[in-house]
Amino acid sequence: MTARNISGKEISAQIYEELRGRIAAFKQRHGRAPHITVVIVGEDPSSQTYVRLKHDKAQDLGIGSTVLRLPADTTEEALLGVVDGLNRDPAVNGLLVQLPLPDHIDEARVLLSVDPAKDVDGFHPMNVGRMVMGDPGVLLPCTPHGVLQLLLRSGVTIEGAHVVIVGRSNIVGKPLANLLIQKREGGNATVTVCHTRTRDLGAITRTADILVAAAGSVNMVTADMVKPGAVVVDVGTNRVPDPSSPRGSRQVGDVDFERVREVASAITPSPGGVGPMTVAMLMWNTVEAAWNQLGR
Amino acid sequence: MTARNISGKEISAQIYEELRGRIAAFKQRHGRAPHITVVIVGEDPSSQTYVRLKHDKAQDLGIGSTVLRLPADTTEEALLGVVDGLNRDPAVNGLLVQLPLPDHIDEARVLLSVDPAKDVDGFHPMNVGRMVMGDPGVLLPCTPHGVLQLLLRSGVTIEGAHVVIVGRSNIVGKPLANLLIQKREGGNATVTVCHTRTRDLGAITRTADILVAAAGSVNMVTADMVKPGAVVVDVGTNRVPDPSSPRGSRQVGDVDFERVREVASAITPSPGGVGPMTVAMLMWNTVEAAWNQLGR
Repeated sequence: MTARNISGKEISAQIYEELRGRIAAFKQRHGRAPHITVVIVGEDPSSQTYVRLKHDKAQDLGIGSTVLRLPADTTEEALLGVVDGLNRDPAVNGLLVQLPLPDHIDEARVLLSVDPAKDVDGFHPMNVGRMVMGDPGVLLPCTPHGVLQLLLRSGVTIEGAHVVIVGRSNIVGKPLANLLIQKREGGNATVTVCHTRTRDLGAITRTADILVAAAGSVNMVTADMVKPGAVVVDVGTNRVPDPSSPRGSRQVGDVDFERVREVASAITPSPGGVGPMTVAMLMWNTVEAAWNQLGR
Repeated sequence: MTARNISGKEISAQIYEELRGRIAAFKQRHGRAPHITVVIVGEDPSSQTYVRLKHDKAQDLGIGSTVLRLPADTTEEALLGVVDGLNRDPAVNGLLVQLPLPDHIDEARVLLSVDPAKDVDGFHPMNVGRMVMGDPGVLLPCTPHGVLQLLLRSGVTIEGAHVVIVGRSNIVGKPLANLLIQKREGGNATVTVCHTRTRDLGAITRTADILVAAAGSVNMVTADMVKPGAVVVDVGTNRVPDPSSPRGSRQVGDVDFERVREVASAITPSPGGVGPMTVAMLMWNTVEAAWNQLGR
């Protein structure tokens, strides 16, 4: 048996269709589109690519989008001033400061300065705390929320399942674990978080009904670590050398995809799985933030 | 073999001795003691008892303590006004609004109004978020922090251990799980959170090196659910009828203590285990908040 493919491309396309409807309704109600502003400091090429991707997607959906490009030598105080101005600007619904920031700027201080109501990344500690405590109205962090939507929309039963997450990052592992244990629809899973200090990782991953690989390590999940019939979600986005590719490298996940798909019942590819969901959930949050701010 | 007893009475006494030193140092540096103010609304008898316990302990340690007793018909706006005044008062280092509040008051709104820097309960979403994200300077919620200190100070190895927590409350299960997975000393555990929707609970608890019962259910953990040699922490504080007691009832935990102690290597009793630690960590937070606010 080969595992069913869970396509982030297809599911994100479905979400975009729903968002188009919500954006149209917002425009009708408020006379303008939701608006996201992204602040980028310096010339990091990957960051430039990510920011362009978000900008293009927003424009495609009819979400207003502004990219503020600041020079690499922008001071922390100047950046905080820019964020403060955007916090106060009622025309800006979503506000995202692209990471990483240059070394001379305290990232934590800058993230903390973003108005939680405009924090469409869902990284502000206030939003993280509200999410952990089960507040239903909070903006959720994009990648974990994308994983949740992938599972829900592909018919995977989360309630009562044992979910094993490998990786404890602030952007994936920790928030996803906290989402999945909530006492509500899309929650009620029994969740285990594993990481580099976990002893006998395979013994634990083999107990998973749903196995989430989010460790940032190529081939970290091999077929012998997967219970037959389990659902496997690959959050990894690693680059490996590939002379046959024009770029000289290609993206792979954390999962030994070709072998694991012979054991699992369903699997997300990488690329094409979780990746497309992250941008989709950022757009979702922008629309959500706009409705929250201007009223329903 | 009978399990070693992990005594919260002894370990909290050790913490109080350390706090006396820190309080003396604070007085020497700042010319006054740290100060905690507890606000209680109405006449709930259990709340009155808890508030008295905290007040007596603070006084015993030489921490300044004020109890503000407000009538049961205090309006939400009036209570928010009181909290606002205490937030602004530099003489108040720790501020705690005793729960539960009367039904006509929105608890979440009141808790959110407490200055996070004075939130010695560690319940403010901002503090919960900072804890989850691994911020080392945050005030930790008292009961989970008490469990952590019990384990650390009784020589239990947390790093690399599989900790299974039964219960996902906002005051114990969720924050404890988030504390124990952090990448730092006193963390690095592999953590599983179980709850009422967990299938085959015993199969999971039997894999635990450290089993934490925090479900609020008498005899929820039986001997057959415990791996021989595991460490068992009982957070439960349930009252059961007991005609032989002057009160007609007595406190028991979530663990079938007499039978589980024949299987475990170490166990906390209830009462006398986690309970005394909660007040100790509240005093710890008051001292910590005072140092944070006035400088070291």
